[in-house]
Amino acid sequence: MSDSLLGPMFGTPGGDALLAALLETEAALARAQARYGVIPAAAAETIAACCRPGSYDAAELGRRAVRHASMVVPLVAELRARAGDAGRYVHQGATSQDVVDTALSLVAARRLDAIGTDLAAVADALAALADDHRATVQIGRTLLQQALPTTFGLVCAGWLVGVDEARAGLSRVRAERLAVQLGGPVGTVADLGGYGVVEAVAADLGLAAPVLPWHTTRNRVAELAAALGIAAGALATVALDVALLSQGEVGELAEADPGGSSAMPHKRNPARAVLVTACAHRAPGLVATILAAQPQEYQRAAGRWQAEWPVLTDLLGTAGAAAGHARAMLTGLRVDTDRMRANAAAAPAPDVGGLVDRALRNHREQP
Amino acid sequence: MSDSLLGPMFGTPGGDALLAALLETEAALARAQARYGVIPAAAAETIAACCRPGSYDAAELGRRAVRHASMVVPLVAELRARAGDAGRYVHQGATSQDVVDTALSLVAARRLDAIGTDLAAVADALAALADDHRATVQIGRTLLQQALPTTFGLVCAGWLVGVDEARAGLSRVRAERLAVQLGGPVGTVADLGGYGVVEAVAADLGLAAPVLPWHTTRNRVAELAAALGIAAGALATVALDVALLSQGEVGELAEADPGGSSAMPHKRNPARAVLVTACAHRAPGLVATILAAQPQEYQRAAGRWQAEWPVLTDLLGTAGAAAGHARAMLTGLRVDTDRMRANAAAAPAPDVGGLVDRALRNHREQP
Amino acid sequence: MSDSLLGPMFGTPGGDALLAALLETEAALARAQARYGVIPAAAAETIAACCRPGSYDAAELGRRAVRHASMVVPLVAELRARAGDAGRYVHQGATSQDVVDTALSLVAARRLDAIGTDLAAVADALAALADDHRATVQIGRTLLQQALPTTFGLVCAGWLVGVDEARAGLSRVRAERLAVQLGGPVGTVADLGGYGVVEAVAADLGLAAPVLPWHTTRNRVAELAAALGIAAGALATVALDVALLSQGEVGELAEADPGGSSAMPHKRNPARAVLVTACAHRAPGLVATILAAQPQEYQRAAGRWQAEWPVLTDLLGTAGAAAGHARAMLTGLRVDTDRMRANAAAAPAPDVGGLVDRALRNHREQP
Amino acid sequence: MSDSLLGPMFGTPGGDALLAALLETEAALARAQARYGVIPAAAAETIAACCRPGSYDAAELGRRAVRHASMVVPLVAELRARAGDAGRYVHQGATSQDVVDTALSLVAARRLDAIGTDLAAVADALAALADDHRATVQIGRTLLQQALPTTFGLVCAGWLVGVDEARAGLSRVRAERLAVQLGGPVGTVADLGGYGVVEAVAADLGLAAPVLPWHTTRNRVAELAAALGIAAGALATVALDVALLSQGEVGELAEADPGGSSAMPHKRNPARAVLVTACAHRAPGLVATILAAQPQEYQRAAGRWQAEWPVLTDLLGTAGAAAGHARAMLTGLRVDTDRMRANAAAAPAPDVGGLVDRALRNHREQP
Repeated sequence: MSDSLLGPMFGTPGGDALLAALLETEAALARAQARYGVIPAAAAETIAACCRPGSYDAAELGRRAVRHASMVVPLVAELRARAGDAGRYVHQGATSQDVVDTALSLVAARRLDAIGTDLAAVADALAALADDHRATVQIGRTLLQQALPTTFGLVCAGWLVGVDEARAGLSRVRAERLAVQLGGPVGTVADLGGYGVVEAVAADLGLAAPVLPWHTTRNRVAELAAALGIAAGALATVALDVALLSQGEVGELAEADPGGSSAMPHKRNPARAVLVTACAHRAPGLVATILAAQPQEYQRAAGRWQAEWPVLTDLLGTAGAAAGHARAMLTGLRVDTDRMRANAAAAPAPDVGGLVDRALRNHREQP
Repeated sequence: MSDSLLGPMFGTPGGDALLAALLETEAALARAQARYGVIPAAAAETIAACCRPGSYDAAELGRRAVRHASMVVPLVAELRARAGDAGRYVHQGATSQDVVDTALSLVAARRLDAIGTDLAAVADALAALADDHRATVQIGRTLLQQALPTTFGLVCAGWLVGVDEARAGLSRVRAERLAVQLGGPVGTVADLGGYGVVEAVAADLGLAAPVLPWHTTRNRVAELAAALGIAAGALATVALDVALLSQGEVGELAEADPGGSSAMPHKRNPARAVLVTACAHRAPGLVATILAAQPQEYQRAAGRWQAEWPVLTDLLGTAGAAAGHARAMLTGLRVDTDRMRANAAAAPAPDVGGLVDRALRNHREQP
Repeated sequence: MSDSLLGPMFGTPGGDALLAALLETEAALARAQARYGVIPAAAAETIAACCRPGSYDAAELGRRAVRHASMVVPLVAELRARAGDAGRYVHQGATSQDVVDTALSLVAARRLDAIGTDLAAVADALAALADDHRATVQIGRTLLQQALPTTFGLVCAGWLVGVDEARAGLSRVRAERLAVQLGGPVGTVADLGGYGVVEAVAADLGLAAPVLPWHTTRNRVAELAAALGIAAGALATVALDVALLSQGEVGELAEADPGGSSAMPHKRNPARAVLVTACAHRAPGLVATILAAQPQEYQRAAGRWQAEWPVLTDLLGTAGAAAGHARAMLTGLRVDTDRMRANAAAAPAPDVGGLVDRALRNHREQP
Repeated sequence: MSDSLLGPMFGTPGGDALLAALLETEAALARAQARYGVIPAAAAETIAACCRPGSYDAAELGRRAVRHASMVVPLVAELRARAGDAGRYVHQGATSQDVVDTALSLVAARRLDAIGTDLAAVADALAALADDHRATVQIGRTLLQQALPTTFGLVCAGWLVGVDEARAGLSRVRAERLAVQLGGPVGTVADLGGYGVVEAVAADLGLAAPVLPWHTTRNRVAELAAALGIAAGALATVALDVALLSQGEVGELAEADPGGSSAMPHKRNPARAVLVTACAHRAPGLVATILAAQPQEYQRAAGRWQAEWPVLTDLLGTAGAAAGHARAMLTGLRVDTDRMRANAAAAPAPDVGGLVDRALRNHREQP
């Protein structure tokens, strides 16, 4: 198994996050099964104690994973060996896809939390700009041509609504759609100890409990991908306009820390806007790949499930990078209100305070 | 303007639905402006009376639209001419994108309603199968290989959850995200008569009222596309398994009305499953195209907005066709329980009634 | 079978082209089989005489096609009925996919010929601009910022190379990859009369003869799609820059027939550039859909083949529309050399005549 | 600059290949400029001697690259420092995109060479199977249903043609389309020393010399991506059928080293076919992303160029992994001719030797 299939393998930064999540999942499963009397409480304690990721040689586990064409088989073997007599209670009733899917949900959950922080900062920055510039006249442009006056605050309010709507979508996915996966080899939950165990693992890990095992019901993965794609698009919308408004010929905006050029010191490149654009550009194709992987065969897919993990890794990474760059792009963004007024031929600013307030109110109502 | 750009043009079935929706939008705008005293009540009545689509020569309007590179300009001109003295109150304060986006939301709303009916029938059929076959043993298969026993009812319950989750996503988009668009040339709402007019048009047309005009804030369109893509994927998941289980060598399912072959009368083609698969296959690429169109320039895009309408038309059409074929595929689906038992080597059915009930309960809770 | 699956159905413009191509294919097959003594020469003459598309009621055939879930079955039945005693020699040894794939190759061939004409005009226009403006100074821009001087002629030469390379790709596909399909139900060519018949049909229709039947070897379709996608991209590259250079703040280019605005008569919209951009935007998702359809099952696919026809129709349509709009965009394009000089701060033009000549020479060498 | 944007950064395996290629490019440029008298011969020797990648601390250079938001700026600075007096002749007249694009062409060229080796082995294996089983009867299947007899050799011949056509496409791209990039900041080749330098660098590095600099003429990149996507599709076509024919209920093929299952020792998973499918599944979305990046602004893009490198890295990786897995899948593939005969109801094998020979002849004619 090539690591280009598996995505980041143990021993790389992305892979180590997965390794930690796999171990967390095994520990949570053991604890839940102990609570329901499926395995002895002492065994669960021993297993959980063996699940500290720092004590594993990630690179060596990665090599074994590639050799076994499975991330889970060598990890469970190692965990069983460490747990001694409790080893036979490790991974009880579970199948490899159970722990991989649960671990991916965990990894995604943490990435979404981090992305959410950056997106909140982006939204707050846009809200401040909208408020400050609610009466700063700017010429509106349609089809790249000057049209009629608007205000820069209203423009920022429009960007803000897009980012806030994207945040709402990600929050919903985080809370409701990132779920544990526990069903056993063909999804009957037979040897796991009942649905209560599934719910206990979910509560333990801070994930949702699904209606049924979702081994080949991949709506959840598709919804995660779509929400990330839409968030990248909302950020790219802002970056596109920032780059256009930073054109020398327009001159209304400039990044605080523009990328320079050794050969051309007069240039003020919209460096962060370019990076947001580049990161976001990758998202639609990745989303389509996840959507095309939705139909999966029988009780475990023969290829499309295996394709999900590297694609989701890329998507979480590129959407996250877009959010980080967008935050930096807006930090200290220079607004040249004189140039805006001049480009608008000194037209009076239209009264759009009410519209701006609608966007700010909507922003404050975000969770 | 080529009609391959615009998508279905007036004078074709898809285009006529758009024409009707454009006229409905103009009528609703006039009524709302009359209510707020922006235009005379009598003018609104005259305008609304002139907005019956049947009285227009759609093909001729289509030709004019192509000539003017605009669907709205010649339509408004014609409407003004018909309205006589009330003509000067037509389309007041609106811009072309306002009425096009609103009309597209209306067209999408009606298509979603129709798709929702087919999807509900699909879900009901799956719920009945899940209930009837909760104890019908079937061999579970992973990586296309026989694994351990499950029941056909649980398999149907898994399909059902996917379809119900997709329905929930479409319902949310229908209720909250299909919105009127009203902002005027650069989105300031300046000459429309205030935000109350926007809300009145929304109420009149059964659409949501947006926080702000969304001329270049395209999250709504992206969310619609994503929900359609996920629904197509949920249907394709069922169709993939129906086709596989209908293989002669497996023999567990057969469509009631299989496609035949003149040359090979013994064949029982899974004709509807093939059609669902074909329709759904088109969705991910269309969704990606909509997502890639999300970043739009300034106050009106220079190309990506114009690309949305034909793509959305295709996506609504292909997802809708998938739903229709899926409904037909399940109608009278023949389940060969003897063959299922034989393929499972007569193993006893696992007890999965509790899981099936979870899916049925979730199904009943769908709106 | 929904016509949204099949793409344009008989009785619509796109569908009628397919109907004519299907009839041409049946006629060519009969002639070739007569030449090889597989069927009587008189029968072939009768069959060919019955294959004039104008004599068929396309709309009625379209209705029957939908009812039979096949475009070919009712058409062959009608053709057999018309041919009387020769009817039993119609479609001999062929399978439905044979004639559909051959007809699609024919339709594509004619569309490529038409697109090639528009692309040649686009390239000629760019070559003239490159030649005329080889010494017209223009400021080069990187990351949307002014950088160092170049000439507008060299910029046009770069566009020209892209368009010429795209033309070369389409020419190769047209000559070598659009092929007849003839193999019979499972591709053994058994009852068609030998491979000589395949080659004769290919020569008759002006298509390539394949190594083997390609029912589920879809490289040819994928190569066609890719070449169309790349051509759309080459055109969009020009359109993107034309739109940017037409910004009021830049003012270096203007379309001869800019789209206007009733509300804002001062605007000079880059209307054709916008249309090229919109048309080209649809291509990548359609190409991906064709590529994803490449893996097809066994001797006839269960869904992905059926998805190809509407997607290819859209792709040929949107790439063709992009070429037509690009041609119009360049016709009479106004180049404001004063503004170029001013934007370049009156810097001297660099000597790039040699580079321009390289592009012009490459252009003249295109077939 | 996030490394999720840049793709594999120096200090990781993929990034180190790029680092080596960047240094090779700088060395080749110096040598070519020396040959044309642009820089002193001794300086070129010194520079080339400083370009051994092993002597650089890749991880540290990677950190500096991220800090400078450029892979090239800190590398050139380091190279200049090492070259002492010759340092001022480093990178003369070049721009960052010149060396990055050239290095990417080099990296791609080597990956294509390696992929070509695996694809040749795949094709040879298929040719041997086609030859051996030209008369082994197998039931042809259409729409997943048994249809009429063919032979397994003809089926393999069909797969072979697809793989050989894909190889031809990659060979053409390797020979003609992977090119050096040298144009300087806005593509005028001004300070590089003339077009002879460009051609000398191309000859030195084994790459093509372009008609013009292609900073924003990205056909070459799009053609590379398309050829990789088509190759992945050709491999996935084989893998799809291998997986289907390996179903227990069909039983005609089995991989020599099937993936097992600890819980279910009777299973014989088509492990490599699954991996080929998974790897190939990622390709269409990546190709679409490259195609969508084709339109780039002015003389250097503001986002879409920057998105290419990680996407191409993924595409080369996933197509390469698909080729490697396909080779392993076919090595020792077990063909159960008894089962094939039984599934075909002992029908006689059709005579398709002539068709098989056509495919074998085509295979032998591949370069």
